[in-house]
Amino acid sequence: MDNKKVTFDDIAKYTHFSKTTISRYFNNPDSLTVKNQDIIAQALIDLNYQENKLAKVLANGKSEFVGIIIPNLYLDYFAEMLNQILTTYETFGYKFLVFVSMNNKETERKYLQELLAYKIEGMIILSHTIPSKELASYNIPIVTIEREDDYVNSVNTDNYMGAVQATSLLCKNNCDVLLHINSQVEKDVPAYGRIQGFQDTCKEYGIQHELIIRDLGHSPSEIHNCMTGICHYLEEKYPGQKKGLFMANDTHANSMLNIIFRKHGKLPGDYRMIGFDDSPIASQAIIPISTIGQQIDKLAFTAMELLVEEMNERKKRRPKPKTGLIHKNITPILLRRETTD
Amino acid sequence: MDNKKVTFDDIAKYTHFSKTTISRYFNNPDSLTVKNQDIIAQALIDLNYQENKLAKVLANGKSEFVGIIIPNLYLDYFAEMLNQILTTYETFGYKFLVFVSMNNKETERKYLQELLAYKIEGMIILSHTIPSKELASYNIPIVTIEREDDYVNSVNTDNYMGAVQATSLLCKNNCDVLLHINSQVEKDVPAYGRIQGFQDTCKEYGIQHELIIRDLGHSPSEIHNCMTGICHYLEEKYPGQKKGLFMANDTHANSMLNIIFRKHGKLPGDYRMIGFDDSPIASQAIIPISTIGQQIDKLAFTAMELLVEEMNERKKRRPKPKTGLIHKNITPILLRRETTD
Repeated sequence: MDNKKVTFDDIAKYTHFSKTTISRYFNNPDSLTVKNQDIIAQALIDLNYQENKLAKVLANGKSEFVGIIIPNLYLDYFAEMLNQILTTYETFGYKFLVFVSMNNKETERKYLQELLAYKIEGMIILSHTIPSKELASYNIPIVTIEREDDYVNSVNTDNYMGAVQATSLLCKNNCDVLLHINSQVEKDVPAYGRIQGFQDTCKEYGIQHELIIRDLGHSPSEIHNCMTGICHYLEEKYPGQKKGLFMANDTHANSMLNIIFRKHGKLPGDYRMIGFDDSPIASQAIIPISTIGQQIDKLAFTAMELLVEEMNERKKRRPKPKTGLIHKNITPILLRRETTD
Repeated sequence: MDNKKVTFDDIAKYTHFSKTTISRYFNNPDSLTVKNQDIIAQALIDLNYQENKLAKVLANGKSEFVGIIIPNLYLDYFAEMLNQILTTYETFGYKFLVFVSMNNKETERKYLQELLAYKIEGMIILSHTIPSKELASYNIPIVTIEREDDYVNSVNTDNYMGAVQATSLLCKNNCDVLLHINSQVEKDVPAYGRIQGFQDTCKEYGIQHELIIRDLGHSPSEIHNCMTGICHYLEEKYPGQKKGLFMANDTHANSMLNIIFRKHGKLPGDYRMIGFDDSPIASQAIIPISTIGQQIDKLAFTAMELLVEEMNERKKRRPKPKTGLIHKNITPILLRRETTD
């Protein structure tokens, strides 16, 4: 195989143009006639010219790289979000350098420094590890998704609206008591809206309710044990009452549903349940779980749009000074399946 | 914020070293005394020097980029594989440019050309779209995982061994008839070993068996409909017989289990079942599903090891000529849960 590099000299000789003309073709093609552009384009094919984009990047600073930092890919939510961000390649042409942080702050900082050294143009950050104040200090375009975003642009699901939808449906299902089961969520994280929306809606409907906040574990078996305990607690405390469960996510909802279903051979009439996220597990459960669907495709696309806008602004000779932060909210969608009426 | 670039000149002036010394620090640091290295390192911090790795890449051709092409992230298997490949960053230091192909050959080819233009050092390919003969012609280090690999290095699960383990367990569970339910698999794809291992083991045990090959659909509802049909077929054809089901993957196993469980309120004694992959769904099912666990962490790490070896060889002044292809097999692990005895 021929590893010899084709140079501008080779292209000049082949086309009988000057090296300056060849260079203009790469840096400012519209300064040549269309005919001459075509001649050079054909020569590149004939000579099997391998463009060196890195050289271009060094010349104009446009690496077309975007860094993505994501906490993990175990959760369907993150895997699907990454999927949707990566597929924007066809629309925007940006290539993605992806890093899984596993909440390790030191590795994440080291990786961020590497990304900056490679002249990435911007970053999309889903990891919660580094405060947005620090992120903002890197002075490159950043958009976060579903995390603390006090100092950076962001795109989030309207978690509050989702909780209102879920809670209202359980009320309309004539439940006697509503339960929201969640782990501890910081108030500055978008997902806190789920707790707030639940409480506000219960008060509005004047319905009996309880907020169950516990460490719910991380592995399937830890979650299963926690949910078993909570199920026992509910049956003791609210016997005979129709219980409406608003679960923090579909993984939790599935675990709770399995426990109830194995006990009764079905989801009995005195239980109604709704999850959050529309993860695959919600459709694959023993009976399909009603849920609040995050529009992950829309979240990902909106985040890239916002980022591309800022990256383009930076490339202008005189970028507009940044005015205020942009936080976009994407409305979730209520999906009624077999765990609610 | 100060965007002015710190140059070698600035560092030389600040440290009172020559520019040549500064350049040696970056290209061959061990040619300087440790003391002088420290002085320069401190100067870089004081001056807030931002290393430009791209310039280095152009100089020495070591981009430290590896391209990953993956079919999708919907399937847990691919999400977890990507997760495991990305976490090798801490071991090998390579950064990953990730592309989701969605089996679109044209976009995939375009992306590959882009990757090459960015001087990536190697590629890990899970997508099935482009034949290995074409991949090999790109003349850069490539390792594939679980796909046709006639012309490239690869790491695969020992699918045949996995099928032998699964089929033997069903035999030992005293099933009367064994069923393997799969979609059409090409013979040159590693996963074909599942079909072959099933058939060989059944013959060895001299047990009644049937291979059910159908288009099983892609969405949860398509899969559910197919499995409902197959379940009906099995109950008609093998009434009263103890049926051992070896499912092609855990998603299929979960779908079939849900159908049987909803019908009988449990998994009746005349059904035993085992899946493949050890996806999260296998643990999250209505009862935990026995499965053949692919060692995804080992597959990913071995693929990177193999790739790094080849990439390092390329960087030598006189690379050894390539001798033959390397295909590594990783043994899967039998996980006995509640759908088998």
